[in-house]
Amino acid sequence: MTSSTSSATPSTPAAPRPAETTAVGATPAPAAPRPAPFAPVGRIPVVEVSPVLEDGRWPAKGTEGEAFPVRATVFREGHDAVAATAVLVTPDGRDHSWAHMVDIAPGLDRYEAWLTPDRPGTWGFRVEGWSDPYGTWRHDATIKVDAGVDVELMLTEGALLLERAAARELPAAAARVLRDAVAGLRDAGRPAPARLAAGTAAEVRAVLAEHPLRDMVSPSATYPVQVDRERALVGSWYEIFPRSVGAHRDAATGEWVSGTLRTAADGLGRIAEMGFDVVYLTPIHPIGMTNRKGRNNTLEARPGDPGSPYGIGAPEGGHDAIHPDLGTFADFDHFVARARQHGMEVALDLALQASPDHPWVTEHPEWFTTRADGSIAYAENPPKKYQDIYPLNFDNDPEGIYAAVRDVLEVWVAHGVTIFRVDNPHTKPLAFWQRLLAEFRQTHPDVLFLAEAFTRPAMMRTLGAIGFHQSYTYFAWRTGKQEIGEYLMELAYETDARLRPAFWPTTHDILTPYMQQGGAAAFAIRAVLAATGSPTWGIYSGYELVENVARPGAEEQIDNEKYEYKERDWSRASSLGVADLLGKLNAVRRAHPALQRLRNVHIHPTDDDQILCFSKRLTAEQSPTGQEDTVIVVLNLDPYTTRQTLLHLDLGALGIAGDAHAPWPVMAASDELGGETYLWGSDPFVRLAPHSRCAHILSVRPL
Amino acid sequence: MTSSTSSATPSTPAAPRPAETTAVGATPAPAAPRPAPFAPVGRIPVVEVSPVLEDGRWPAKGTEGEAFPVRATVFREGHDAVAATAVLVTPDGRDHSWAHMVDIAPGLDRYEAWLTPDRPGTWGFRVEGWSDPYGTWRHDATIKVDAGVDVELMLTEGALLLERAAARELPAAAARVLRDAVAGLRDAGRPAPARLAAGTAAEVRAVLAEHPLRDMVSPSATYPVQVDRERALVGSWYEIFPRSVGAHRDAATGEWVSGTLRTAADGLGRIAEMGFDVVYLTPIHPIGMTNRKGRNNTLEARPGDPGSPYGIGAPEGGHDAIHPDLGTFADFDHFVARARQHGMEVALDLALQASPDHPWVTEHPEWFTTRADGSIAYAENPPKKYQDIYPLNFDNDPEGIYAAVRDVLEVWVAHGVTIFRVDNPHTKPLAFWQRLLAEFRQTHPDVLFLAEAFTRPAMMRTLGAIGFHQSYTYFAWRTGKQEIGEYLMELAYETDARLRPAFWPTTHDILTPYMQQGGAAAFAIRAVLAATGSPTWGIYSGYELVENVARPGAEEQIDNEKYEYKERDWSRASSLGVADLLGKLNAVRRAHPALQRLRNVHIHPTDDDQILCFSKRLTAEQSPTGQEDTVIVVLNLDPYTTRQTLLHLDLGALGIAGDAHAPWPVMAASDELGGETYLWGSDPFVRLAPHSRCAHILSVRPL
Repeated sequence: MTSSTSSATPSTPAAPRPAETTAVGATPAPAAPRPAPFAPVGRIPVVEVSPVLEDGRWPAKGTEGEAFPVRATVFREGHDAVAATAVLVTPDGRDHSWAHMVDIAPGLDRYEAWLTPDRPGTWGFRVEGWSDPYGTWRHDATIKVDAGVDVELMLTEGALLLERAAARELPAAAARVLRDAVAGLRDAGRPAPARLAAGTAAEVRAVLAEHPLRDMVSPSATYPVQVDRERALVGSWYEIFPRSVGAHRDAATGEWVSGTLRTAADGLGRIAEMGFDVVYLTPIHPIGMTNRKGRNNTLEARPGDPGSPYGIGAPEGGHDAIHPDLGTFADFDHFVARARQHGMEVALDLALQASPDHPWVTEHPEWFTTRADGSIAYAENPPKKYQDIYPLNFDNDPEGIYAAVRDVLEVWVAHGVTIFRVDNPHTKPLAFWQRLLAEFRQTHPDVLFLAEAFTRPAMMRTLGAIGFHQSYTYFAWRTGKQEIGEYLMELAYETDARLRPAFWPTTHDILTPYMQQGGAAAFAIRAVLAATGSPTWGIYSGYELVENVARPGAEEQIDNEKYEYKERDWSRASSLGVADLLGKLNAVRRAHPALQRLRNVHIHPTDDDQILCFSKRLTAEQSPTGQEDTVIVVLNLDPYTTRQTLLHLDLGALGIAGDAHAPWPVMAASDELGGETYLWGSDPFVRLAPHSRCAHILSVRPL
Repeated sequence: MTSSTSSATPSTPAAPRPAETTAVGATPAPAAPRPAPFAPVGRIPVVEVSPVLEDGRWPAKGTEGEAFPVRATVFREGHDAVAATAVLVTPDGRDHSWAHMVDIAPGLDRYEAWLTPDRPGTWGFRVEGWSDPYGTWRHDATIKVDAGVDVELMLTEGALLLERAAARELPAAAARVLRDAVAGLRDAGRPAPARLAAGTAAEVRAVLAEHPLRDMVSPSATYPVQVDRERALVGSWYEIFPRSVGAHRDAATGEWVSGTLRTAADGLGRIAEMGFDVVYLTPIHPIGMTNRKGRNNTLEARPGDPGSPYGIGAPEGGHDAIHPDLGTFADFDHFVARARQHGMEVALDLALQASPDHPWVTEHPEWFTTRADGSIAYAENPPKKYQDIYPLNFDNDPEGIYAAVRDVLEVWVAHGVTIFRVDNPHTKPLAFWQRLLAEFRQTHPDVLFLAEAFTRPAMMRTLGAIGFHQSYTYFAWRTGKQEIGEYLMELAYETDARLRPAFWPTTHDILTPYMQQGGAAAFAIRAVLAATGSPTWGIYSGYELVENVARPGAEEQIDNEKYEYKERDWSRASSLGVADLLGKLNAVRRAHPALQRLRNVHIHPTDDDQILCFSKRLTAEQSPTGQEDTVIVVLNLDPYTTRQTLLHLDLGALGIAGDAHAPWPVMAASDELGGETYLWGSDPFVRLAPHSRCAHILSVRPL
């Protein structure tokens, strides 16, 4: 396990250096020993505060209007009562709101409260532990008066305490309640239990809950929370290759005619009708000719093959140019304007790589890697080479490359792009992204960046933590009931401070075996799960047509429009039903704020190993509408077979008070897809047929 | 869950205050919004470093000579090789040693290495992530040369890389290895595979492991580790009530004659013979008369009852005085001197509470709590009162009480006390202890404090984290096989940076049902487990006599010497065998450094639900002797029945290389209690009889 030696390692960043040249004996004369660091524990200890990233050096993620949980371990010496408050601090440093923390793990002294920032910015929060003299008195007095011990003394001490509480600046009604309690405690003409009751009555406790008497208030550090606008968390995305929208074969020549930004703009109405609010464009820049890829990822393009839009750069320009076949900046502006008319934002791909024909290759060869033979390095995954792509090298001229990328982004922001979908951010240095994202949060706080990283957890979480607003996820590969449930919980409660998830059933790169094999039912099932399981979901064009044939040996579409034009006949969509479902799902999402939140999911057991049941809920206080909102999703994950089961609903998680087990109806559950309303107890029966009704999405009203 | 409101909460510490007086609208004019905090991610990201307590504000615990694990999540962009180094930093800020970190959770990018501080002080550590150009080249070149891709280019790039490596300041032999490799790579007369082999040979890799070529070195923050002297971790304690040692009834009067510090000193030889190295004295101060407790915790003492030594304070003095029956400071000095002659340190109880007769009560009534009727508050657990004890109130005059306690401690330190066993630290403010411990770490770095807190986990862990050197644990109540195994793992790998455990099978306050019922076998079993399961263990006087009768309704000894004199006939001990066992256990502990360490335990499965098997191991590098040391403990936890089982040993955890499953002998296991040597494979058979042989403690030598 260990290979400790006694040599020292210098730590100059980057660049070659002689290693282990400094033996311990040769180090400079020692300075005075440091004293132990002394960070005072509070009078009431508050430790293990969460969410805290990297010792508080990086902000946790928050979203305007979404409550986030604050947790801390709070306890005290001896037996007196302790309590804790979570305080939300605005970007300009003022206390904004507070919440009483509740003990969520009795015996472990773990407390929690939820706070809701209401606008973007760098907020803060802290936890205050405090001594609760009223709680102490109430506990002790109740026992001692009952036991006849120190009776008069306890009543006197209660009166003194409530006098102190009433002497504070309080609403008149609250002060009156406390003064009445004091009078009751001091009324020697009444029996002791009645006097005690005057001091412990529900209205007294309510006043002291609203206006707690807090002694020895001990604040934690204030930790940062980066709050972004709602679209960072919530959105319905639709992906298109603009050249495909309106592409067609010329009737005369039989040659392909590219779609354009104008024809793509004409296609926006169809997308908007389904209720999407972000339209995402794959790269729209000139495409290189050198080593251009042919159809189905073949190594040699035939004449007329349009090439991959990810092979960016040609004599016509690079990342700040528009492919001549697609149109001009005026056409792009038209596209953006039309999208806005339809209530949609425009997201643009940012794929930081170059075709060999990219202007950067000749203008800035230092932005690429030059090999020992003087050639520029292709992208490779040894022994494979991708000769249509040169990866950027961010280390030779980091300032130059940073400025170039920033300038590219400024061009598109100036033309109305508000979201960038960043292709493969995990192949570029994180320090580059962190700097870029911090600058854009300052200069363009509304601009969002989505990380398209499908890689190991540490990288994915850290990309979120250093500033990406949103992240693709492992969703496409989570198809089993248990793994889906665990993943929903992980995203909602483990990684929620680091990344905001996007659920995409397919993309132009991803067509899983489940989607290849499950027919239209699989497309419906995964659409329901994506739309309800995550506040952001995304659909890749053609989903409505159940495009589920893969290129042999690959988990992506055959005849992939990455490498060719794709003309689609949308009239076929209505018979498949998927387009209709997508529209319904977006409508349900819009109607239910609970579906627009991340940290509110709850998994309910079912007896069938393919029927998944989860709920999302907002209390009235957490909901933007001021009304509580509870949705149950019941989904048959099996695209082949009708299944039935009992659900075992956790009524508490649904906001339904009373018995945990209720054989009688306790809720009206209205299906937002089918329109039926069921009267359900805690263990209802469901039956779901993959082709006609794969899911219930139920709006819950307690009876 | 949430009760967020829009009122603000001020946070002035301590003292009554009007709550929620500042409405949000009334707060001062906002300052400029803060930018997001920007703490740069390294070029090679290093995150989630451990051990880090409270964001690095509190030091983790380390012990001189004990290796501690450093962990971090380290990864990088793209596919090039990444590596990490853990660096240990001395108290005066110099790099002391380093260790190559290994990936302990492939796929999760979690790395670990062990570092060993070699003297007390506030050390530091950091993690350096770095790019490994040799690792990258070796990986790519091996694949590409084999595939015939870029062969000459890869060989050239390897030569250039190793030339760079050889150009550093290196031992001559190492440089020669690298230069030879360069020559081999460049030798165009040889076939490509042979040239490649010259660059990837084992000796080249060995040189680069010892002298890594590190690019883009990216250090984490440097985090603190408070390193204490070895006795903070390792010790064999023996507890006595000094008044009992030598106590006897006067033959003439029939009255009790108290033991004294002189007679207690005479008893030290017996304790030292058993191999203990700390003798712990319950309080030796004058005992109050007011409400003095009688025998068996009765409320009224009879004449001659000596009272509880925890009822501290009488007209003769308080915490800085010696009970007249025990002797004088000269007698105390004699006791300390005799203990030292026997190689033992003296630990003294520190019980910060007062009898009503304590001088502080009249001199400093403000150090206690005065109730509404003017009386001083007794200790209580409502409705029970403990009228022989006034608890201190640390909030009225914190400076005065702090100075008084410090002065008390200085008295005892001046008279040779090097360890304080702190009674009920969890009933006093943690801020008080933190300050006191920080001061004594400065003024008397050799003085240790043991926290006697039997309470909830958060308090126990935090007492350790704020500075207590050692902690009592839940050991006495962990009696089942699985819970013992889990507890050993928790202490070794979860709470190890926060607290150092002490295992006591019994104390003067604790006699669990297991000990009451299991006879001498239970005493033997728990002694073995305490002595081998924890680097520090402790025995309460009388253990050798199997004093296992409880006061009815209590889990402590009947006729408890807290309330009376106890004369013991040690001659009976030999027939019971426990004293002999204690001596053997201390001898085994002394012979095996592996038993003197905390973070090196491994649990091995057995087929019997009462036979526990664990091992402790130090590599030669970690061991103070320079020899590897491996001990297997096999223990029958059932005090009533002979049991037998197969063990299923994890050979890797025992330092035995080769097959995981070995039906043939792979080790010689010598029983340190019985003397036999067994030749064992991976799944040996054992049979353990509780009364004759409850355990094997086996020294392991690989064959």
